[in-house]
Amino acid sequence: MNRNILRETDGAARALARRLVREAPYAALAVNEEETGFPLASRVLLATDIDGAPAILVSGLSVHTRAIEADDRVSILTGEPAKGDPLAHPRLTTRCHARLVDRESVHHAWLRRRFLSRHPKAKTYIDFPDFNLFRLEPVSANLNGGFGKAFVLEGADLVRPDALKSYRWFDSSYAAKHAEGMFLQVENKDYAFIDIDPEGIYFRERRIIARHDFEKVSTNHDELLELVHEFACKIPKI
Amino acid sequence: MNRNILRETDGAARALARRLVREAPYAALAVNEEETGFPLASRVLLATDIDGAPAILVSGLSVHTRAIEADDRVSILTGEPAKGDPLAHPRLTTRCHARLVDRESVHHAWLRRRFLSRHPKAKTYIDFPDFNLFRLEPVSANLNGGFGKAFVLEGADLVRPDALKSYRWFDSSYAAKHAEGMFLQVENKDYAFIDIDPEGIYFRERRIIARHDFEKVSTNHDELLELVHEFACKIPKI
Repeated sequence: MNRNILRETDGAARALARRLVREAPYAALAVNEEETGFPLASRVLLATDIDGAPAILVSGLSVHTRAIEADDRVSILTGEPAKGDPLAHPRLTTRCHARLVDRESVHHAWLRRRFLSRHPKAKTYIDFPDFNLFRLEPVSANLNGGFGKAFVLEGADLVRPDALKSYRWFDSSYAAKHAEGMFLQVENKDYAFIDIDPEGIYFRERRIIARHDFEKVSTNHDELLELVHEFACKIPKI
Repeated sequence: MNRNILRETDGAARALARRLVREAPYAALAVNEEETGFPLASRVLLATDIDGAPAILVSGLSVHTRAIEADDRVSILTGEPAKGDPLAHPRLTTRCHARLVDRESVHHAWLRRRFLSRHPKAKTYIDFPDFNLFRLEPVSANLNGGFGKAFVLEGADLVRPDALKSYRWFDSSYAAKHAEGMFLQVENKDYAFIDIDPEGIYFRERRIIARHDFEKVSTNHDELLELVHEFACKIPKI
């Protein structure tokens, strides 16, 4: 972050930052390694909770998990470069507190489903006794939108407040089943449904994970599926 | 790193680890942020010194550089996933001590040339007064060669001992000029020369940075250019 080039955080910066977390299939995770004092960067698969907070699935036998258990302060780097200069591509460093999600909790079942909707291959190991889901509570973030475009964000810029309360009415299996059906009707193989929440949907456009935020946040299933229908109608038919 | 799946470090693991550092155009850099206690992951361009040690170019105004100045313990994550499951791709976490390279030193001139041979666009800012080169001295590394293939390495596995002494006879500008000429004679636009050292050459194969290690380490320019010639002759003509 360059002090001279630090810009005022606006709606566009917040939207870009949210996209960089939500559309990332994986991240570089930095943890404090207690034994050595070194900060360790490793690769983890990423999903999001329905409020936009990132979530990771890690083995309790791995170096990074042992580090998190000793010190819950972590950061994730998201925003992978495509072709061209790697520093011209936007990326985000998000400081988070890692919170273990109790395997016996309802929240674990929700997050587990959400994780697998994005990473179906993880089904072969997600239920191993040494594997755990951690929710990463964003504290603050540094956005680098490319050369000379630096922004500082708060944790609250990345999550929708009170979104977890949606789970009171939101039935993710029901909503996902119906939303997936609408995508299948489009009959365009370049687009595949991934997951849904009251705020938007994830889908695969060719190989890339994409996020579409609805214009308003749904408060019931009828409203939600109507918004999915509107979106699905805009997907070009082959 | 999984204790159950930790394997004995062999020559193939060391060769893979060296390749993961040397062929990486960029890395995720983890640093200790003194003010917050959080480990920070950010993106940096990477080059290597002639012994294989990584080197980075960073702005003194950036968060990561201020962190390095307060605590020289860092790690880099290298090995970018291509298509498919990101966790199936090999990657390496290397713990390093970051050493500022004195701008007035001969070593800085060598490293500067080496950095620019790989990242020519950095020419526009490498000489800005706030930009500095840091050499990262490898301390140890964790190699993840894909599911169930974990190895622990020492810093010495990643660098060639005494290689920096080659600078006594090695004239990088002279060697690079002649090696580049041999590549141009091949007339295959998929291959472009990047840089050379007594141990091997870097070249671009389409868009990818590749490293070729010679069968022996050169001890003079004639021997070195003969090895480049042998390699260039093996590049397919279009």
